[in-house]
Amino acid sequence: MIEQVRNTVPLIHCITNYVTVGDVANMILAAGGSPIMADGIHEAEDITSICRGLVINIGTLNERTIESMLRAGKRAAELGHPIVFDPVGAGASAFRTETAMKIMEEIPCTVIRGNVSEIKTIAGELGLGKKIGNSAETNISRGVDSNELDVVTEENLEQMCRFAKELSRKTGAVVAITGAIDVVADCDHAYVIRNGHAMMAKVTGTGCMLDGVIAAYVCGGGKAVAEAVAEAIAAEGLCGELAYKKMLVHNGGTGSFRIYLFDFMSQLDDERLDGGKRIEIR
Amino acid sequence: MIEQVRNTVPLIHCITNYVTVGDVANMILAAGGSPIMADGIHEAEDITSICRGLVINIGTLNERTIESMLRAGKRAAELGHPIVFDPVGAGASAFRTETAMKIMEEIPCTVIRGNVSEIKTIAGELGLGKKIGNSAETNISRGVDSNELDVVTEENLEQMCRFAKELSRKTGAVVAITGAIDVVADCDHAYVIRNGHAMMAKVTGTGCMLDGVIAAYVCGGGKAVAEAVAEAIAAEGLCGELAYKKMLVHNGGTGSFRIYLFDFMSQLDDERLDGGKRIEIR
Amino acid sequence: MIEQVRNTVPLIHCITNYVTVGDVANMILAAGGSPIMADGIHEAEDITSICRGLVINIGTLNERTIESMLRAGKRAAELGHPIVFDPVGAGASAFRTETAMKIMEEIPCTVIRGNVSEIKTIAGELGLGKKIGNSAETNISRGVDSNELDVVTEENLEQMCRFAKELSRKTGAVVAITGAIDVVADCDHAYVIRNGHAMMAKVTGTGCMLDGVIAAYVCGGGKAVAEAVAEAIAAEGLCGELAYKKMLVHNGGTGSFRIYLFDFMSQLDDERLDGGKRIEIR
Repeated sequence: MIEQVRNTVPLIHCITNYVTVGDVANMILAAGGSPIMADGIHEAEDITSICRGLVINIGTLNERTIESMLRAGKRAAELGHPIVFDPVGAGASAFRTETAMKIMEEIPCTVIRGNVSEIKTIAGELGLGKKIGNSAETNISRGVDSNELDVVTEENLEQMCRFAKELSRKTGAVVAITGAIDVVADCDHAYVIRNGHAMMAKVTGTGCMLDGVIAAYVCGGGKAVAEAVAEAIAAEGLCGELAYKKMLVHNGGTGSFRIYLFDFMSQLDDERLDGGKRIEIR
Repeated sequence: MIEQVRNTVPLIHCITNYVTVGDVANMILAAGGSPIMADGIHEAEDITSICRGLVINIGTLNERTIESMLRAGKRAAELGHPIVFDPVGAGASAFRTETAMKIMEEIPCTVIRGNVSEIKTIAGELGLGKKIGNSAETNISRGVDSNELDVVTEENLEQMCRFAKELSRKTGAVVAITGAIDVVADCDHAYVIRNGHAMMAKVTGTGCMLDGVIAAYVCGGGKAVAEAVAEAIAAEGLCGELAYKKMLVHNGGTGSFRIYLFDFMSQLDDERLDGGKRIEIR
Repeated sequence: MIEQVRNTVPLIHCITNYVTVGDVANMILAAGGSPIMADGIHEAEDITSICRGLVINIGTLNERTIESMLRAGKRAAELGHPIVFDPVGAGASAFRTETAMKIMEEIPCTVIRGNVSEIKTIAGELGLGKKIGNSAETNISRGVDSNELDVVTEENLEQMCRFAKELSRKTGAVVAITGAIDVVADCDHAYVIRNGHAMMAKVTGTGCMLDGVIAAYVCGGGKAVAEAVAEAIAAEGLCGELAYKKMLVHNGGTGSFRIYLFDFMSQLDDERLDGGKRIEIR
């Protein structure tokens, strides 16, 4: 799959936040794709038209870019391009929650990726119960972090898989809930991914970068969407594990760890991914 | 103090520039806090409300974000959240000077941090004499750099400490003047910090990142504001010293130096900080 | 030349994209200049006035910044400041192509730098034939990448040099076409530069960073414009070669490669550049 991505170099249009945008571009390049970050209203549709896929990430939302997201999303849908939507911080402000729901309503997303708090917010707005995990209805937002009560654990894993499948049925999108344990689901199957390292939460944008890797793998990897998403999550997680080991060898901290993430992603091939991925299908 | 920051993980709302925003987020994470960068007008107040502190940095000012800064600042003040204000480039354009003064007027800042040129510009606008340092009234702006005549030296240090205290009395904020020698003052005391390395000026955003470290330490460190600010400046300065040494060992340049800054901040603990900080109280 | 840049520390005003803006700032610092990134409409002219040169890069174009680009460009022209224009993605959307041409029309650019596809788009709009290279008229845009048929090769090099000279005559600007082989031309001479490494295309923003290095060298290096541009391209290319070698030694990938680019640029001096540059004059 990775070889195919590297050979086809899928061009990915990203309308994303200005915090991690450079890292997202570099991670897409490292994964084998080619990024174009463009959020001008007057070119959103033109740019999407020359690309193979679209990433919409609401990390630093403002009025101007919402319109660009909607225009690009509609055009991408017309063209049959995969659309990865990351509702960053949904639940942290009314503005984000409303915008996330507007995007969900107007654009047929191919993949929705977020942490538990974000995905639960969306599910709640869609009328699905939020009584998932420990934090129940009380969604005390930690902004772009997941509420610490909102985690996927071995104990609630079965429940989370059912929840993700249910949300996938409701939305038509592959649902990816990422955290210490990751869950990906389409209507029928759930993939549980146990790659990754806690240090990844100490670097800003590992989630945003993952959006880019997902888009590259879905657009260029030649696999079914849910499987490509699971492999992308496993791939970045595996790079996190390898980066952590290398960081320890060099007595580094979060700065070096972040750089090694890009290093290992750019060096990743199918053999290493197949040897290191820990994906369980439920 | 650092242990307390790492245990409480204060959530910091940053409205900052798009040049160094990712570095600021990563530095807040390395210091033990958790950043949320959000400048949308429609969510400025919501986001501030779920945070513990606010950073306002006018590095890349535009019309849209000024309103967000004011709204977030007022809400943060209502909630009693510490507010760190960085008047980047005040004096370099009328627009920046005016905006800085508008923020100073409408928002009760907890900490004002800038280089000598920026702080002198603000003091001058407030009617305090600018006849501090060598450049006297003629403030030949070097943009976001300090005018090279505008430096804190051992010769003018006593004068700078008095000036900072006077500005603190006038504004009610802790005043931090950063450069080769740093001065922090509240109404009564001045802290002189002699950590840091000249190489830090060869990396963009070390000042912006410091705003984030200051916010994390003030919000989560359990110390009085001026002391927390002084410790934050000493901490980043110490990381600069350590990064420079590691850079030399590895024959690196400014790229590696920047990465090591994050590394050392993420590894810093109270013992190392207490052993390395050079803070004098006057 | 580099020594002179480092001694004079030219202040460079950049209105550039938010993807690579921090890297551009850090690269200008590494090259010996001092960057100020400012795109507010109300300060574009003030900021340009205190600088020595201007970079305009349309990588993430929006309505607001176009006006800032025009205002800054006109003021810079009045003051006789060198202006480096990078028409990122010209040809990828009507909006970009139109904006690029508007800038070309209203601002007397000193240097125009782009990949073959971008430069051909501009030449075509100016009525010069696009029948250059293999892709002839059919400009299938790859977004911010060059169309893979649009490359400078040893076979079409003579043609490319003539094309660049012709465009320089038409525009009055030094024209820089960058890729695996780089061509720089004024009306009379073409410089062919054979430094660089393919890995540079796997890091976002090496072109944007080059804009900054060009501005620093043109403004502070004391050489004729075309020669300074050629040296800047050779310098970054040489850093790419050195970075690639160091990356291999450390088993790194694109993350480390990117950091080493900054390292080597910050360490570069005239002796090393003169020893490593491969510039041919035609």
